[in-house]
Amino acid sequence: MKGFGIHTSLWAMDWTTEGAEKAIAEAQKYPLDFIEIALLDPPSVDAAHTRYLLERAELPAVTSLGLPEEAWASVRPAEAIAFLEDALDKTAAIGAWALSGVVYGGIGERTGKPPTEAELDNVARVLQHTAKYAKNLGLELGIEPVNRYETHIMNTGWQAADMIDRVGAENMFIHLDTYHMNIEEKGAANGILDTREHLKYIHLSESDRGVPGAGTCDWNEIFAALAAIGFTGGLAMESFINLPPQIASGLSVWRPVADSAEQVMNDGLPFLRNKAIQYGLIPK
Amino acid sequence: MKGFGIHTSLWAMDWTTEGAEKAIAEAQKYPLDFIEIALLDPPSVDAAHTRYLLERAELPAVTSLGLPEEAWASVRPAEAIAFLEDALDKTAAIGAWALSGVVYGGIGERTGKPPTEAELDNVARVLQHTAKYAKNLGLELGIEPVNRYETHIMNTGWQAADMIDRVGAENMFIHLDTYHMNIEEKGAANGILDTREHLKYIHLSESDRGVPGAGTCDWNEIFAALAAIGFTGGLAMESFINLPPQIASGLSVWRPVADSAEQVMNDGLPFLRNKAIQYGLIPK
Amino acid sequence: MKGFGIHTSLWAMDWTTEGAEKAIAEAQKYPLDFIEIALLDPPSVDAAHTRYLLERAELPAVTSLGLPEEAWASVRPAEAIAFLEDALDKTAAIGAWALSGVVYGGIGERTGKPPTEAELDNVARVLQHTAKYAKNLGLELGIEPVNRYETHIMNTGWQAADMIDRVGAENMFIHLDTYHMNIEEKGAANGILDTREHLKYIHLSESDRGVPGAGTCDWNEIFAALAAIGFTGGLAMESFINLPPQIASGLSVWRPVADSAEQVMNDGLPFLRNKAIQYGLIPK
Amino acid sequence: MKGFGIHTSLWAMDWTTEGAEKAIAEAQKYPLDFIEIALLDPPSVDAAHTRYLLERAELPAVTSLGLPEEAWASVRPAEAIAFLEDALDKTAAIGAWALSGVVYGGIGERTGKPPTEAELDNVARVLQHTAKYAKNLGLELGIEPVNRYETHIMNTGWQAADMIDRVGAENMFIHLDTYHMNIEEKGAANGILDTREHLKYIHLSESDRGVPGAGTCDWNEIFAALAAIGFTGGLAMESFINLPPQIASGLSVWRPVADSAEQVMNDGLPFLRNKAIQYGLIPK
Repeated sequence: MKGFGIHTSLWAMDWTTEGAEKAIAEAQKYPLDFIEIALLDPPSVDAAHTRYLLERAELPAVTSLGLPEEAWASVRPAEAIAFLEDALDKTAAIGAWALSGVVYGGIGERTGKPPTEAELDNVARVLQHTAKYAKNLGLELGIEPVNRYETHIMNTGWQAADMIDRVGAENMFIHLDTYHMNIEEKGAANGILDTREHLKYIHLSESDRGVPGAGTCDWNEIFAALAAIGFTGGLAMESFINLPPQIASGLSVWRPVADSAEQVMNDGLPFLRNKAIQYGLIPK
Repeated sequence: MKGFGIHTSLWAMDWTTEGAEKAIAEAQKYPLDFIEIALLDPPSVDAAHTRYLLERAELPAVTSLGLPEEAWASVRPAEAIAFLEDALDKTAAIGAWALSGVVYGGIGERTGKPPTEAELDNVARVLQHTAKYAKNLGLELGIEPVNRYETHIMNTGWQAADMIDRVGAENMFIHLDTYHMNIEEKGAANGILDTREHLKYIHLSESDRGVPGAGTCDWNEIFAALAAIGFTGGLAMESFINLPPQIASGLSVWRPVADSAEQVMNDGLPFLRNKAIQYGLIPK
Repeated sequence: MKGFGIHTSLWAMDWTTEGAEKAIAEAQKYPLDFIEIALLDPPSVDAAHTRYLLERAELPAVTSLGLPEEAWASVRPAEAIAFLEDALDKTAAIGAWALSGVVYGGIGERTGKPPTEAELDNVARVLQHTAKYAKNLGLELGIEPVNRYETHIMNTGWQAADMIDRVGAENMFIHLDTYHMNIEEKGAANGILDTREHLKYIHLSESDRGVPGAGTCDWNEIFAALAAIGFTGGLAMESFINLPPQIASGLSVWRPVADSAEQVMNDGLPFLRNKAIQYGLIPK
Repeated sequence: MKGFGIHTSLWAMDWTTEGAEKAIAEAQKYPLDFIEIALLDPPSVDAAHTRYLLERAELPAVTSLGLPEEAWASVRPAEAIAFLEDALDKTAAIGAWALSGVVYGGIGERTGKPPTEAELDNVARVLQHTAKYAKNLGLELGIEPVNRYETHIMNTGWQAADMIDRVGAENMFIHLDTYHMNIEEKGAANGILDTREHLKYIHLSESDRGVPGAGTCDWNEIFAALAAIGFTGGLAMESFINLPPQIASGLSVWRPVADSAEQVMNDGLPFLRNKAIQYGLIPK
């Protein structure tokens, strides 16, 4: 996966056939190299339909998810494995390159304590099994550290790198997100530096999840660090606006953080592309 | 309240007589103009003892709190009022200048939906009553917006300003926190600009709640904006390290974000003071 | 003068009738509120023609200049006054609002020593006379501090404010430039804070004089400070590319700092406008 | 050369025996790993005395210079070579590691035009000869690009890298300076990224040449980029205050940019060291 992509939740929260059609049609209006599809409910996705749309649009894809509470890897490893296998089958069926995201747990999973060794062991075993399953399907498996409020399992780049070392699977990679890095890393670049061996995908998301370029993220530092490590992976813009209640709750977005999807695309995407060009990450 | 102060949780999480003695003794080792005392359990505080220690040290104080779930203002206004009256009595008894913080709710309070008018009305009525109660004690009452994960009631400076307008009490003020602003504001200065009429207190807290100067907060922009509005209130450094489990849970800090209190004081305080001098906020 | 404008040197270095026609035609292609016209050689300007073009385009204008060596105010006050009177006459004749820039000296004027009291006195007397002359024409007179290499007379905002105090003319104002501030001020906002009483015009110029948004200027801090002081003056984008040798020499630009005028307008102007919107300086 | 060092002009502008004694005595008061000695007039330096002082203090050293007008490499290559051979002999005699700085020309050298091929050829031939001469002495030879006002020959990192490629000498390296990068590079990190193959030395100098940490340089981006490329060279703090007239003229510093050498050392050095630690460039 390379170049600029976008998380399709900007246009469709549910990946129904209608949602898929709308999102892919919208994505084609912009200079995008790939899309990310949220597999919140893998069985409900019509893989053949999505595959057809993606091939027609010549758009590569990545899928992503967070686990539902009944399948959190830290406490329900068997259920996590079953859920992830389904998601990987669907990912392969739609012709995507990888499954990524909070594949190790739930968005909002917190015990009120630091992660225990037992929890981390469960996560590692789930990932080990799942990575192997993904490999047999020709897929890569990504893990995305998220901020302290969304999980207690993995908040920083170096924690994700530790987990990859623990698992030892060759087809695993790290997926960072600038929104979370802005909270968790001691300087935006540190997340990138700590994961340079494994970083293949990054969410470019503003500090309030609104329009990239209009927040507190230090984009100069972020793009400088990406350029410095020779990053060639996917740059996925992500913004959450006008969310339905069930999603807003998980992400805790209580107000519109952008005026519209058009604002995100027309202001945010050129801003990010110009920064990528400024630091030599993509050609002019 | 003016000059540089510190949130005493750096040295003492519980404001017992031992905690008070330790915290005030530590604070006196540094060039500080005031301290902030967390009133997590107002009845347990020995006000006369604290007052004696503060007077002996010639240290002004501010108290702060978040409401326990059984007294959240949005849903249990009567209980909130009772709790806040106790806290104000104690604040007056120890000789502090104001009670501030998340006085409108709980740290971690979220319904999964945006705040309703009914919730905001309850909050406004609690604050109206409480501000009057504070006024009779000669105290000021502050409200601190915190990030989306810690409350759904009030996340930004402009929401706090709206609430003050709604309440209409003269002895209320806004208390910002750079850690929360880094997540919620569209540029660090915007929180300051949106609250300039009411801003009297600010927590200077790094993006990961670690050592100020070693994170993603844009301190130049923050101090420039404070200088620009002619801010003359209290600058309270805040850092949370090595928290006991019950507090770590509320704040979701799962790993040490600083090596020690000494690191916070020896690296963070000079950094912040020099920035304040650079932008003319305090004299050389 | 208010809103967004542009220094027309982007399209025409010499303000001949051809240059004027080209520059104004280009300016009209973009959402601009005014233009700045360099009066490098006042007698050569066809004022009636420029006035006609400006009125037809409904474009307000500002003129600007640096003094030629034979008329440096610090050492040749009489010649400076004569030159500036000509420039003001021309400014009035074309219907512009003000004359501004390095009206106190030459771009490249340096004695190798700090400015002497005698030099500053000469400058002050020239400005006093010139401001009165401008007033009789209904014009404002601006002074622009520039970096240490371009003059030894006035490098910072506070030095410009000191000069205004020394002169005491009501129709004088300060004109800052972000390119120079990036070199001279202790934090980009400080130039703005130090001149808030007199600031009516600002050059938005990137750190290398290339495309705004693709350099080292801290635009968040700059726009935050402008918003904080309630700036309502002119925001003039300035970029120097592909300069003719005689100008390149004065400004010391030895290589193209942008690909084209189109890049400056299509990437730089939207970047600056979005930053101005982000900080509430202009409406959405 | 590695770790933190300092340009000794902070304490002594002339490297007389008195200047050397003062500067080395001052340097020893701080946690410094090396010093930089300006060889403005090589024949006047008592090499044996300096060597003795350095060995006693166990302080490694680097020498640096700019060429006098009668020996500018672009136009007087033979004279440049003679001057540089003298400087290298002296550098070897005092036991320093390298000669660096504006060894290719004068500080203030400008023709008013971009560098010609003939000028660059002369520079390249001088450097080729000089690098070989240095090699025979066991020395490295550095080149420092400086801003457009101080030379027209070489302003950016990529121009320095081009020159090294042109010369093809193995013992040459690039020496950057954050003060110049802040003016010339399209983002502070770009100078570092463009020179990563050859970068062995960097001046950490604030945007106004005052106290590091109190200006417009983006230190987060700078240290992030240094860490990202695995920089292990010398970090030399540089600040120019209270200069004698002849030096102030070359550097165009017309006012004190810091209160004192103590302020530079006590505020600037800890700031820079903490940033280096934050990004993992030096150990805690």
